Amino acid sequence: MAKVQGYSARPTLRIDLSAIKSNYLAIQKKVGTTKVAASVKADAYGLGLVPVSKVLYGAGCRIFFVATAGEGKALREAVGENVSIYVLNGPAPRDLTLLFGSYLKPVINSMAQAQMWVEATTGVKSAPFCAIHIDTGMNRLGFDQEEFQMLSRNKPMQQKLGIDLVMSHLACAPDAAHPMNKTQLDAFRRATAQLPMTTMSLANTAGVYLGKPYHFQMVRPGIGLYGGGATTQRDKESTMPVVTLLGAVLQIKKIKAGQTLGYDATYTAKKDMTVAIVGAGYADGIPVSSSATDTKKGGHAIFRKQHVQIVGRVSMDLTILDVSSVDDQIEIGHQVAFRGDQLGLDSSDAGTINYELLVRLGQRCRRDYLR
Amino acid sequence: MAKVQGYSARPTLRIDLSAIKSNYLAIQKKVGTTKVAASVKADAYGLGLVPVSKVLYGAGCRIFFVATAGEGKALREAVGENVSIYVLNGPAPRDLTLLFGSYLKPVINSMAQAQMWVEATTGVKSAPFCAIHIDTGMNRLGFDQEEFQMLSRNKPMQQKLGIDLVMSHLACAPDAAHPMNKTQLDAFRRATAQLPMTTMSLANTAGVYLGKPYHFQMVRPGIGLYGGGATTQRDKESTMPVVTLLGAVLQIKKIKAGQTLGYDATYTAKKDMTVAIVGAGYADGIPVSSSATDTKKGGHAIFRKQHVQIVGRVSMDLTILDVSSVDDQIEIGHQVAFRGDQLGLDSSDAGTINYELLVRLGQRCRRDYLR
Repeated sequence: MAKVQGYSARPTLRIDLSAIKSNYLAIQKKVGTTKVAASVKADAYGLGLVPVSKVLYGAGCRIFFVATAGEGKALREAVGENVSIYVLNGPAPRDLTLLFGSYLKPVINSMAQAQMWVEATTGVKSAPFCAIHIDTGMNRLGFDQEEFQMLSRNKPMQQKLGIDLVMSHLACAPDAAHPMNKTQLDAFRRATAQLPMTTMSLANTAGVYLGKPYHFQMVRPGIGLYGGGATTQRDKESTMPVVTLLGAVLQIKKIKAGQTLGYDATYTAKKDMTVAIVGAGYADGIPVSSSATDTKKGGHAIFRKQHVQIVGRVSMDLTILDVSSVDDQIEIGHQVAFRGDQLGLDSSDAGTINYELLVRLGQRCRRDYLR
Repeated sequence: MAKVQGYSARPTLRIDLSAIKSNYLAIQKKVGTTKVAASVKADAYGLGLVPVSKVLYGAGCRIFFVATAGEGKALREAVGENVSIYVLNGPAPRDLTLLFGSYLKPVINSMAQAQMWVEATTGVKSAPFCAIHIDTGMNRLGFDQEEFQMLSRNKPMQQKLGIDLVMSHLACAPDAAHPMNKTQLDAFRRATAQLPMTTMSLANTAGVYLGKPYHFQMVRPGIGLYGGGATTQRDKESTMPVVTLLGAVLQIKKIKAGQTLGYDATYTAKKDMTVAIVGAGYADGIPVSSSATDTKKGGHAIFRKQHVQIVGRVSMDLTILDVSSVDDQIEIGHQVAFRGDQLGLDSSDAGTINYELLVRLGQRCRRDYLR
């Protein structure tokens, strides 16, 4: 019988804060004198808004982007007065108290939001500045061409708004050869020429790697800070892995060829094998889509630098691994790792994107922040 | 321009606690005098351990299952001394303090865990009882045949363990015609005949609908309490929907035929259309896999009982909907609903299972508990 080691059945999410700092500084080095803001929305992509934003502050970051006013309030409490916080999803009537109370700058995406912001700030002393977001072709949030023309002709409204940033967002930056990049760059230049000079920003992480013309006065990386490859190749050298999910081996079993494993018996052992049942599942962020069936190879975990394949369906709290290749080494209580430097690889196994894998990780885990 | 209504940009997760109670009582009615335990692992499938377990307690539930000792401790604090709490992932050396401190009953899955539990409890006054989990064919956690024979012959060990429940878990219960169900039932009967009489339990939600022979003295539903269809048909009548994700329309746009939408420009408008950009994305639990591309229809949301399709890739904080069919009604600030009674439908759209959709919902959302 396998030796029982000292372990907890609770999984661990290990987050390397020094790697986040290093990733921030690598981007700062790449863009020279351009300011590097940080996207910390969705709880810093699931890694913890407070510790992540504090380490970014320590690395010199003074501009942050969140999605909602509630995220902005939590961020303000974490990093203090000395930073700019932009709220991407714009001002909303019921969020005005939060925006004013925590001095959060809304990103204005439409004439409706512009009018709301003008009305809300009229007569308010030291109301927050705001950003203008121009939709240059992604067709998501942002001023479309028609509404942008209305804004650019309306000088009094521009003055009342108090604009300190004009931005847009790239749709296809991970693919450097995509014609959309140049189309958006040109559209952004044309549009910003019609507004008074202020800080301009176009690039997310992948945009940073499109080169100098895309940097303007500010870049706004997110995924690149957290170790996710934003492009398939260009950022790999300078990006360090940040996050590892660790689960303990709870049981080791011998399975005979022909036996089925897991829910709905979708996986049949093709040979006699040794499996390890690990205490981490989709509630911890290992996606069901990384399951293995008789017709589809699944994702994998890492045990002592060796890949071990997922077999059967990933369940809520448990994942079964084929550990036949390491069955002379692996014991109950040992930890196996998911993610780490394989985020891109995993997301393609799982039919999703590394961003989504990140935000889904580890709600139930013990969090182990490396400093 | 669309009228701006009073709204927040933060999404809302609406959880109907009275529906959870109703679902519990419907299962209790179905199984007669059999006890109905509740699976509340993974933060009650993502819906909130404390409010959910309290409402289940109010409905009469006195037996709960969690995955880890940490979950058990939080549950004990919520529901008090008067309930049994089983920890499915078993005892682990570093979790013993939690197990003893909160009187949590570990589910013993192997001889290694049995020996650990005997050693840990020897000489301890009023140590918690434990459950024995027999693997009857799922090949996940639980005593395999060989180890179970060791246990069933070892009467002194059985006495030392303090067993008050013998259980197994069904692999294929959603499919009533699957031969695995009968195989597991027979194996469970054969195995339990070798142990002293105690409470026996085999059925999860889907097992409840396999009929009386599967009920024994206790059933352990999870997904059925939370409104997820555990079977494709049989439980639909008695299960009420529990959870709805609501996002606000932040912007409405006219898109011309031939324009692309969202990241990587994977969706091209086939006709002129009206789109709504909604403030909820995959960080809120709308899976990336429910995105729509030029070759794949995506998931949908509900606006005033009408389906509106997702177009383009779901992004972290935003989802784009084709609202052409309702563009005379929909306005900025209106809320659209994801999930609700369509959990099964959505999960098949998204290439996953309703269980996973549930646990991923709404970490960032305001939570609105209906009582």
